Amino acid sequence: RGIRVGYTPDVLTDATAELSVALLLSACRRLPEAAEQVKSGGWTTWKPLWMCGYGLSDSTVGIIGLGRIGQAVARRLKPFGVRKFLYTGSGPKPESAAEFGAEFVPLTRLAEESDFVVVTCALTPATQGMCNKDFFGRMKKTSVFVNTSRGAVVNQEDLYNALASGQIAAAGLDVTTPEPLPTDHPLLSLKNCVILPHIGSATYATRSTMAVLAAKNLLAGLRGEPMPHELKL
Amino acid sequence: RGIRVGYTPDVLTDATAELSVALLLSACRRLPEAAEQVKSGGWTTWKPLWMCGYGLSDSTVGIIGLGRIGQAVARRLKPFGVRKFLYTGSGPKPESAAEFGAEFVPLTRLAEESDFVVVTCALTPATQGMCNKDFFGRMKKTSVFVNTSRGAVVNQEDLYNALASGQIAAAGLDVTTPEPLPTDHPLLSLKNCVILPHIGSATYATRSTMAVLAAKNLLAGLRGEPMPHELKL
Repeated sequence: RGIRVGYTPDVLTDATAELSVALLLSACRRLPEAAEQVKSGGWTTWKPLWMCGYGLSDSTVGIIGLGRIGQAVARRLKPFGVRKFLYTGSGPKPESAAEFGAEFVPLTRLAEESDFVVVTCALTPATQGMCNKDFFGRMKKTSVFVNTSRGAVVNQEDLYNALASGQIAAAGLDVTTPEPLPTDHPLLSLKNCVILPHIGSATYATRSTMAVLAAKNLLAGLRGEPMPHELKL
Repeated sequence: RGIRVGYTPDVLTDATAELSVALLLSACRRLPEAAEQVKSGGWTTWKPLWMCGYGLSDSTVGIIGLGRIGQAVARRLKPFGVRKFLYTGSGPKPESAAEFGAEFVPLTRLAEESDFVVVTCALTPATQGMCNKDFFGRMKKTSVFVNTSRGAVVNQEDLYNALASGQIAAAGLDVTTPEPLPTDHPLLSLKNCVILPHIGSATYATRSTMAVLAAKNLLAGLRGEPMPHELKL
């Protein structure tokens, strides 16, 4: 009490949504594995199903947490030919859900019907460990799971088992528990798991905007003036 | 003469456009390099500009060859906040250019003004080696170059020099000369060059559709009937 706290909302929505799509496409189309094949000499003659992945055309995409970032993800994915968006979450149902034809469903149905699941919700007691053995067990064997929210939403041991056993096809994570992830973590041994070092907001433009906003918050606070964005508890 | 040839047009447009966007985002946001940092222990504490890349928000995207695939790329990139599309090419100017607000410009102006360049043209005597020292020399130092058409459109030695000297920021290639690219090729030594093994059409759904269409062409040809898609020279 007495210590004012500024934060930088909104300005990282676009960069994080963009990274979510990048991670989804990389996992679906197996980019890191394919790039590794070029370096290792695994690229030889043309074979019909070599390095094949799953495309977004005609797919069902499930979004867990259709907030600012989730909506920005849906808006970017729509022209890839996504047939249907499903979403779940505890927040208010956004008006823009109609723009994407997104249907609100329970978490279990989202897991069962989605070809691709993207997690963009906040970490709360209700979402902690939500993506667990039961959740992955309901997902399709051809499905791809992406998390760009917070690592603790996922039970990583359950995710490892789902990926290693072929219960789901692939995963992309920009967030883990802990961060940084130890370099000997089992998830790093899997070909079908793409792990990034929490770079959702890492564009030069976004980090610059974040820095300017943080400085404006700080200066306003020091002057005893209203901050552009002050955390109110 | 006398040997009829079937082919499989159109069916790989979506998969190839999707891969083009995946490759552009991977190069812009440095995904393979970032994933490598997770594995090697380079991921430590948060630093403001570590692993920062370039985002599509408010950018200018130049498309070389606004045919079926180029248009499908533009349609997918538009909701990422692209401010302006430029395009060039020798084909007819597509009606859909208006849909994206795409402006036809000479190749030199496209190179100079684009933040991101995507090559989706056919390989012809006119396009062979078109992306050369002069072309890369006109591009911005912060720009990213992506080729998902044919390797010979690019002068690879000039691309190597542009990437190694910092003349451009990064590149993504799904096609090379030759294919497969030798594993000791200098381009493979660069952190800012993502090279894929020609997987533009590599989704299970697309390869299956291609196979069925090829079989239908073949059966029609054997029966002396009109092929669904026959090459006419």
